[in-house]
Amino acid sequence: MKHTLSILVENQTSVLSRIVGLFSRRAFNINSLAVAETDDDKISRITITVGKDGKDEDEYFASNLEQILKQLRKLIDIIHVRCIDNHELLSRELVLIKVGCTENNRSVLISIAEATKSKISDVSDTTMTLELSGNKNKIRTLEKLLKPYGIKEMVSSGEIALHRGGKCLETNTQA
Amino acid sequence: MKHTLSILVENQTSVLSRIVGLFSRRAFNINSLAVAETDDDKISRITITVGKDGKDEDEYFASNLEQILKQLRKLIDIIHVRCIDNHELLSRELVLIKVGCTENNRSVLISIAEATKSKISDVSDTTMTLELSGNKNKIRTLEKLLKPYGIKEMVSSGEIALHRGGKCLETNTQA
Repeated sequence: MKHTLSILVENQTSVLSRIVGLFSRRAFNINSLAVAETDDDKISRITITVGKDGKDEDEYFASNLEQILKQLRKLIDIIHVRCIDNHELLSRELVLIKVGCTENNRSVLISIAEATKSKISDVSDTTMTLELSGNKNKIRTLEKLLKPYGIKEMVSSGEIALHRGGKCLETNTQA
Repeated sequence: MKHTLSILVENQTSVLSRIVGLFSRRAFNINSLAVAETDDDKISRITITVGKDGKDEDEYFASNLEQILKQLRKLIDIIHVRCIDNHELLSRELVLIKVGCTENNRSVLISIAEATKSKISDVSDTTMTLELSGNKNKIRTLEKLLKPYGIKEMVSSGEIALHRGGKCLETNTQA
């Protein structure tokens, strides 16, 4: 099962290092992590995903994750930590994918961009870079469609997430 | 000046911790960091931004950044490190912004979404969540437009980046 952690922190130099260190010391693999300032530049929000979709977890994983959450809550400069339940999770990901592009396949690549509602962010005489934001399935579909044309390089933001509806991390209540 | 680092790493538990630790030990503030798997699930790509747009840097900042880059290249599990020059930088960011939404301002928020080409990702009786990907200026414009309606919470991916054109990090040559 995949778990999505949303963490609000004071924008201090060492806070990210302490958070990542907690996972690392327990040999706990982070699938993706995204951190950036919020609308308040003194506060940053970190989204971390761990575990795999459709993969059963052993008790060791579950108790380890619980321990990490407890320790996160004790760190200074951490304002809120929450594991967002999947049924109330609004999560999105952004990718840039650069593929090989020649005169012969340019129109096919344009059709793929149109069909998947991707934007064409950059074109050169040998490559085309597509940009897409959406849920994980949408991103995987684009990746599969582009693979036959040669993915030169790809960068993903990892997932970012909020609660669906009025619930907020800050208030832990309805907004 | 803002600097954008693109780092390819082996997908190992401790590599992120070692990278973030390098910055932390030099009290070097990371503005944003995004890490996720590439199309090869054994390899992850990390995008890190440091420094501020339009802000002059002292010599201390520049020499410190150079030292960090040198040390990054020495770490095991690191495949490539590159500071992408601004003139060849293709960078994008993704945000989800949840604003207060009532019957009275719903149509105004919909117009803002249309004007900025944002997607409406979620609606409740008290909130609306907009999703936008683009360059930093586009994101800041949406933030400014929504601020008067009350930003309840916001999450950003931070910037992700590739070289424009055919140049790739892996090969350091034209694709």
